[in-house]
Amino acid sequence: MPRTVDVETRRRDIAAAVRGVLARDGVDAVTMRNVANELGATTGLLTHWVPNRIGLIRLALEETANEQTDRAVAVLLRRPEDVIGAMEEFMPLDPDRLAEMKVWLGFWALAISDQTLRAEQRDRYRDFRVRLTAHLRGLGVSAARAQSGTELAIATADGIAVAAVLEPEHWTPARQRRHLRAVIGYALPDLAPARR
Amino acid sequence: MPRTVDVETRRRDIAAAVRGVLARDGVDAVTMRNVANELGATTGLLTHWVPNRIGLIRLALEETANEQTDRAVAVLLRRPEDVIGAMEEFMPLDPDRLAEMKVWLGFWALAISDQTLRAEQRDRYRDFRVRLTAHLRGLGVSAARAQSGTELAIATADGIAVAAVLEPEHWTPARQRRHLRAVIGYALPDLAPARR
Repeated sequence: MPRTVDVETRRRDIAAAVRGVLARDGVDAVTMRNVANELGATTGLLTHWVPNRIGLIRLALEETANEQTDRAVAVLLRRPEDVIGAMEEFMPLDPDRLAEMKVWLGFWALAISDQTLRAEQRDRYRDFRVRLTAHLRGLGVSAARAQSGTELAIATADGIAVAAVLEPEHWTPARQRRHLRAVIGYALPDLAPARR
Repeated sequence: MPRTVDVETRRRDIAAAVRGVLARDGVDAVTMRNVANELGATTGLLTHWVPNRIGLIRLALEETANEQTDRAVAVLLRRPEDVIGAMEEFMPLDPDRLAEMKVWLGFWALAISDQTLRAEQRDRYRDFRVRLTAHLRGLGVSAARAQSGTELAIATADGIAVAAVLEPEHWTPARQRRHLRAVIGYALPDLAPARR
């Protein structure tokens, strides 16, 4: 089905272009024109695929979040107890993940006033919580602990990730990892003591 | 000194106007024209006080963060052990604090690509950490614990605050408070056991 492949490739290319513009020039620079330039396409052509800049940010977020989720799932398939390793896929621990986190920050700022983006955020975080809670239950963590541990782990990871984007000198990868481990060790004490 | 009072009042008015526009219409809507309209002033007049939209966001953040910090300091002067109460001044637990948190989210999205805003963020967070660490040392917390507890508490509070802006149905004030208490109880175990 070459057509489907084309659509997928195009979405990935657009997402990469948005990430490039956002990481270099910030959320204000994510305009149809700048992203078209980054793609080497015309604004007219880009309009056929994405209607406006909210659409650009949404597409970039969807692609980015899906890639991060796929990587996190792959970690858990290889090492089911390595919840920390799975969460690290979402943290700005290297330049690629830093560019991904900037997509989240831009998306959040626009989501303040955009119902569609807020619905996307809500559905995605619900899905994160449901999946991680189910995974933890599968590892034998109690229902109450799995639920509250999941919430705290996700919120803390986001807080550290935001801090690390904005203050990279202070929030080195080692510091990010140390605090993430500490919180997960606390929130999910039944889990993988060797990693704490 | 009426002139100084005027400047202060004007800064507060501009910050309130930015907060109003941002909370209602999002970061994209924070333009010189929209903020001038919100103030009932002309764009030309606003330009005398603030040069551009980065300046607007910066002024709004400075005023907002200073007000939050003053309230947090007031809590700690009344009840030195109530670190949780002080941190709650920064969390979106009611509509006013929700509008304040939206200023932070907008500021962060623009700070991705603006050196001035990032320097503001860095200096402000350094100051938060220095003050809270010193306060905790004064309460008898060990240096190592005060430092790492401060970092973790601030990052977690930010993560919860972001989540609560974007997913208010899930992150009720009670849930925000519960997780903040849990983390502070863990990160600063020497502190105020009665609050945990």
